[in-house]
Amino acid sequence: MKVHLLTIGDELLIGQVVDSNSAWMAQRLNEIGAEVLEITSVGDDPEHIRRTLERLFASEADAILATGGLGPTKDDKTKQAFADFFGVGFVFHQETWERLCRLFERFGRQPTDAHRQQCLMPQNAEILSNDFGTAPAMWFEERGKVLVSLPGVPHEMKQLMEAEVLPRLRARFPGKVILHRTILTVGEGESRIAQRLSAIEEGLPPALKLAYLPGLGQVRLRLSATGEDESQLRTLLEEHAAAIERALPGIVFGYEDTTLEEAIGNLLRERRLTLATAESCTGGYLAHRITTVSGSSDYFTGSVVAYSNAVKQKVLGVRESTLRRYGAVSEATVREMVQGVRKALGADAAIATSGIAGPTGGTPEKPVGTIWIAAGCGEELHTRKLQLGTDRLLNIQLTGVFALDLLRKILLQTPPA
Amino acid sequence: MKVHLLTIGDELLIGQVVDSNSAWMAQRLNEIGAEVLEITSVGDDPEHIRRTLERLFASEADAILATGGLGPTKDDKTKQAFADFFGVGFVFHQETWERLCRLFERFGRQPTDAHRQQCLMPQNAEILSNDFGTAPAMWFEERGKVLVSLPGVPHEMKQLMEAEVLPRLRARFPGKVILHRTILTVGEGESRIAQRLSAIEEGLPPALKLAYLPGLGQVRLRLSATGEDESQLRTLLEEHAAAIERALPGIVFGYEDTTLEEAIGNLLRERRLTLATAESCTGGYLAHRITTVSGSSDYFTGSVVAYSNAVKQKVLGVRESTLRRYGAVSEATVREMVQGVRKALGADAAIATSGIAGPTGGTPEKPVGTIWIAAGCGEELHTRKLQLGTDRLLNIQLTGVFALDLLRKILLQTPPA
Repeated sequence: MKVHLLTIGDELLIGQVVDSNSAWMAQRLNEIGAEVLEITSVGDDPEHIRRTLERLFASEADAILATGGLGPTKDDKTKQAFADFFGVGFVFHQETWERLCRLFERFGRQPTDAHRQQCLMPQNAEILSNDFGTAPAMWFEERGKVLVSLPGVPHEMKQLMEAEVLPRLRARFPGKVILHRTILTVGEGESRIAQRLSAIEEGLPPALKLAYLPGLGQVRLRLSATGEDESQLRTLLEEHAAAIERALPGIVFGYEDTTLEEAIGNLLRERRLTLATAESCTGGYLAHRITTVSGSSDYFTGSVVAYSNAVKQKVLGVRESTLRRYGAVSEATVREMVQGVRKALGADAAIATSGIAGPTGGTPEKPVGTIWIAAGCGEELHTRKLQLGTDRLLNIQLTGVFALDLLRKILLQTPPA
Repeated sequence: MKVHLLTIGDELLIGQVVDSNSAWMAQRLNEIGAEVLEITSVGDDPEHIRRTLERLFASEADAILATGGLGPTKDDKTKQAFADFFGVGFVFHQETWERLCRLFERFGRQPTDAHRQQCLMPQNAEILSNDFGTAPAMWFEERGKVLVSLPGVPHEMKQLMEAEVLPRLRARFPGKVILHRTILTVGEGESRIAQRLSAIEEGLPPALKLAYLPGLGQVRLRLSATGEDESQLRTLLEEHAAAIERALPGIVFGYEDTTLEEAIGNLLRERRLTLATAESCTGGYLAHRITTVSGSSDYFTGSVVAYSNAVKQKVLGVRESTLRRYGAVSEATVREMVQGVRKALGADAAIATSGIAGPTGGTPEKPVGTIWIAAGCGEELHTRKLQLGTDRLLNIQLTGVFALDLLRKILLQTPPA
C-alpha cells in the first residue's frame, strides 16, 4: 500500500505549527507495512487543495490521508474543496448532529450555527465518528483510491487513526504479513547499543529488520518481520528479540508501548511498595509522569515540589547546615530529601532531584545542567550526579528519565512480595 | 515572493524525524513578506526529487528552498538529482575543500574520500559557505526561478538562512510586506469566539486576514496584514487587534508566543506575590507547567501533590470530617487544600485540584471527569466544578489550563504592587 499524506492549514505555511501529525501517521503506517511516498502541506486555499488532489489522484498512491481544515470557522476550507473536487453536493448528517448535541449537553452548552454547518457532509463521504471532538472524519473511495479526511487536532486524529482508519486500510489493501516487536531500553545511547548488537545485526535473516528509535534517554529497538507465514515469522521474531534482550543486560525495561513510569508502577505493585517524590529542579515533572499512569494512586502517595529552600527545610526536613555547607544542588541535599519525603508522605520508596535546570543560574563551580538525583528504598539509597546542557525543558525531562531509572535499578534488587 | 519548501530525507517518510525545519523557515520567510505556497517532503529518491523539481519549476513559485540529503553518506542523493534535473556535470570546488581541510585540522582529523566527494558541485551552482558543517549550500538561478539547496542539520540550515539566503532573497524579490499579530485566549471555544467576532470579521478590510488556531482550552487568533505600506499596515493591524481584544473581555491573556504560565508568572511578579499548588488529580502537572518558565523560582515556592487522603490531611491539613462528609472530590476539599498549602508552603496565592482523572474510578454520583478546582489569593477564593471526558491525560491537561485561568482572573482583580 502506497500512501500520500496531505496536511492542510495556513498555520503550517506561516510556521506557527510544526507538522508533528505527519511523523506520527508515517510511523503507524510503516508499522502496518504501508510506504509513505510524500508528505505535502498546503494552506486553507480551496484551489490549491483541489489541484493537489488532482495530482495525487493521478499518482501511484493507493490512499491519501489528509488532516486539518475541518474546524467550524470560516478559514477551514477542506470539506468544500473535497466536495468541489468530487463534484458532489452536501447532505446533513443527523447522527453527527445528535452526537454534537449530546457532547454540548454534557458541558451544559448549546451547539451554534457553526456546529450545524459542521454536520453538512459531502454526499459521497462515509462518516467516521470522532469521540473526542466536533469534526468527524470522512472516508471517500473514488477512482480506485481511498481519500480520508481527518481533523488536525492531534489526539482526535490519533484516536480516529487507531480506531477506524488503520483497520479499514489494512482490510482494503491486504498485503504481506508484518509483525513487530519493540524492545524498550533506558540509560544507554544509540551507538553504544548498536556496538553491543553488531554480531546479532550481522546475522539477521533477510525477513527481519532492526530499527533504532532514539528518544530522550531511551532507545526503542523495533524488530520487524515481513513475509507470508505468520506463525513462522512469529517464532523468528521472538527468538531474535530474546537474543537482543540477552545482549543488553540491565537496560531493557519493557516492550511495545509500555512507558518507563508504567514499568516502575508494575515493579512497585509486585513488591507492595509505595512511592513519593521530592522535586526541586524537576518541579513536579516526575510526579506528573508517574500519575499519568491510570491506577497510580495504588502505589503513589504524592510529591513535595520544594522549589524554595524554606520548603526543603520545613516540609522535607533538610537541615539548614546541609544547605549552608553543600548548597541545595548537592549529594547531601538529595539524600536528605529522599529520607525527608519518605517520612513526610509515609512512603516506602522515594526519588529526589535538585539541580540548575537553566538556562541561567549557573556558577563556575556548578554550571547550568549540574543536577543531583537520588533514589531510596529500604536500606538502599543511590545517588548520581548529572552534567546536562543548557536547555531547561530538556534538562527537566532527562533528569526525570535518569531518576526513574535510578529507582528502577534499586527495585530490581528488591524481591517481589 | 512566493516560495515552495522542499525537505528531502527517508527519515521524514518513516516518521523518525519531525520536520521542524520547515516551520522555522516558514516563520522567517513570512517575516520578510514571502508567502509559502506549499511544503513538500520526499525521500532520498532521485527520480521523485527530479519529478518534484519539474512540478515546482512549472508552478507559480519564485523560489524553491530545499533542505536535506547533502551528507557524505551514500543515501544522500540531493546533489546528483539536482545536477540531473539541470542536465549539468560536476566541478571540484577548491574553496570548499580548503575549508574542510581547515575544519578537520581543528579537530586533529583528516577529511576522507567521502568529504572529497562533497566538494564536487553542479556546474551551475553558486556555493554559499557553511561555517558550521561540511556541506555548503547551493544557489541556482534557472528559468527565472531561484533554487536553493541547504543542509538538513537545523543549526547549519538556520545559520545559512540568516547569513546568506534571506538577504539574497530579499534583494532578488523585493515585494509586499506581511505583518502578523497573535492574540492568545483561554477558557472559551473556537466557535463561541467566532460568534463574538462575527461582526468584526465581516468588516475586515481585504488587506487583513483572521485565523483561529485552537489548542487545549486555548485558542490563538492570528491577524495578518498584507500590502505595500508597512506603517499603514501596522496601524490597520493594531486597530483591528485592539477591536478584537475589546470584543473578548476577560479571555485574552497575552500575545505572540507567551504561554499561560508565563502570563501568570508576570501577573505574580508585578504584584510581588508567591504561589503554591496543591494537586490531587493533576498530580504535579500544574507545578511542572509553572516551573517550565525560567525564573519561576522568583514566585513559585512549591507544590504538594497529595495523591493519598493521608497526605491531604497530614501535610495540607484537610479535615478528616470534610473528607468523610463530602469526599476528596468536593468543593469543601479543594477549598481546604488551597488554604492548607498556602500555610504549609508559605505562599500568598494557591491553586488546588481534586477529581477523577479516569479512565476508571468513577461512581454514578461522581463519574470519571468530575473535577473540582480552586484558586485563592488574599481574601478571594474561587472554586469551579468541571465535567470533562474519560481521557486521563487530556483531563489532567485541561484541568491545568482551567485552574491556571481561575487564578489569572483573581490576580487581575488584585492591583499590582
